[in-house]
Amino acid sequence: MNKILAVGSLAFDTISTPSGKADKVLGGSLNYFSLSASFFTGLDLVGVVGEDFPKDHFETLKKRGIDISGVKTMPGKTFHWTGEYGKDLNEAITLSTQLNVFEHFNPQLPDSYRDTDYLFLGNIAPELQICVLEQVKKPKLIALDSMNFWITGKRAELAEVLKRVDLLTINEGEAKLLAEESNVIVAAEKILSMGPKAIVIKRGEYGAFLFFENQIFSAPAVPIRKVVDPTGAGDTFAGGLVGHLAAKGVGLDWQSLKEGVLIGSVMASFTVEDFSFNRLVELDRSRIDQRLESLKNTMKI
Amino acid sequence: MNKILAVGSLAFDTISTPSGKADKVLGGSLNYFSLSASFFTGLDLVGVVGEDFPKDHFETLKKRGIDISGVKTMPGKTFHWTGEYGKDLNEAITLSTQLNVFEHFNPQLPDSYRDTDYLFLGNIAPELQICVLEQVKKPKLIALDSMNFWITGKRAELAEVLKRVDLLTINEGEAKLLAEESNVIVAAEKILSMGPKAIVIKRGEYGAFLFFENQIFSAPAVPIRKVVDPTGAGDTFAGGLVGHLAAKGVGLDWQSLKEGVLIGSVMASFTVEDFSFNRLVELDRSRIDQRLESLKNTMKI
Repeated sequence: MNKILAVGSLAFDTISTPSGKADKVLGGSLNYFSLSASFFTGLDLVGVVGEDFPKDHFETLKKRGIDISGVKTMPGKTFHWTGEYGKDLNEAITLSTQLNVFEHFNPQLPDSYRDTDYLFLGNIAPELQICVLEQVKKPKLIALDSMNFWITGKRAELAEVLKRVDLLTINEGEAKLLAEESNVIVAAEKILSMGPKAIVIKRGEYGAFLFFENQIFSAPAVPIRKVVDPTGAGDTFAGGLVGHLAAKGVGLDWQSLKEGVLIGSVMASFTVEDFSFNRLVELDRSRIDQRLESLKNTMKI
Repeated sequence: MNKILAVGSLAFDTISTPSGKADKVLGGSLNYFSLSASFFTGLDLVGVVGEDFPKDHFETLKKRGIDISGVKTMPGKTFHWTGEYGKDLNEAITLSTQLNVFEHFNPQLPDSYRDTDYLFLGNIAPELQICVLEQVKKPKLIALDSMNFWITGKRAELAEVLKRVDLLTINEGEAKLLAEESNVIVAAEKILSMGPKAIVIKRGEYGAFLFFENQIFSAPAVPIRKVVDPTGAGDTFAGGLVGHLAAKGVGLDWQSLKEGVLIGSVMASFTVEDFSFNRLVELDRSRIDQRLESLKNTMKI
């Protein structure tokens, strides 16, 4: 089995959506990504939490075959994101971002993590992503996710990371912001010229675009009757995609990328059905396969 | 060949989009629908224009095998729509709707039109759509398109039409408005309970959903690098869809509906590349087939 080395945030989220409110629930890119990917492969995590982080959550991760020896507990508070969604559930409005322990985080990889074949750089400060890149040997696949907070605040640093990654997953609005271009196809092409060899543009309820070697794959989203909270959908998506590639032991392979995008869509469709990652922890493989099958049915000509 | 009897508007449009401005160019649901459908089958048109309508346009229609003996010229001015698009090219903002000759239009079908097998009720006042429905014998397929203007202004009349149609094509925002429901899947289900046996929800650059007999088909849009003007895209889409069904001589057949939705997407992708229906009149079948092939490639698993 090919484990994924994943770095990102373990966080508290305070969220309000048209369906309700969740106060200080568990979230963060690393949680969503790793819980999602864990259905397909093993993971080593690198991250940081504050002293207020609930220890029993580590047990939940361990039970899913996730190694947390690279997760540090530091003095201070855990990263806390507060956001809301209006009627347009495709776009989060950030109300506050308290980096807390992330401000002084210096990710150090345990030796056993350094020769990983699969590296996922989750949505955290680009400098931290670079710091991780410096410590790994020669991964077969480096995947990256980022967001508007870093695109506007740390553009130069993010550009450095982009030069060194194979696969970028990014949502549509952020792709347009990064490329400074309003057409999504042109935006994708511009971003490809910044470094990544493949890019997946996540379009929320509208599915996802995959661009690789002058080919485009259009994946629909799973039709969902009630979206409760879209938070973490993108990281969950990336977990399904990279998890699938690692499970197959492949790098940027067109067929596997396409399958991975559909699996990512399926995983994300569970996350949005409840607050936090409630749906992910109660999931089993047969329900994933079932939903994948019905997603494929919606695109059968 | 199964001709389509189509009713709708022949109009002038004044449009501004981020790509430019078009002043009093030819438009209207019937023009877009019939030019699009004419690549697949013949058409009989029912409509009305004012004395200011350019006669040479009738020659353009005739050359494409479109019968215009049901198009009346009435004293007064032709219907004139003025609208604009902001950065979000998926949503038109109506600045003015001058119905003009449409206000006193009473569609009378030539006898030879009444036993049509295929009827398309384009986007005009629901009372006029009902008036046409009263005059036809027993079509194999009745398709309908409508828009926010009638959904908000003539809800009861539109509900009457909905009870009597087989296939509704409608855009996403209008489907939500009609169903009074913010989730697109639930909205589609609600609308199906109002009468239509099949519904196609057009989502602009995000493709289209087809709902029929508890099945869902997700069609992507053709990836377009520059959308100049989305006006008429929906009617063009319907023209490709209904044109395909008529050419095959079928009613609500799942396989044909799915193919028709893809053909509709392809036809719409040409319309949006220029103002008015400039792209449609210069088109040939081989370019349609080519683009259909490449659209199918983007959805191949």
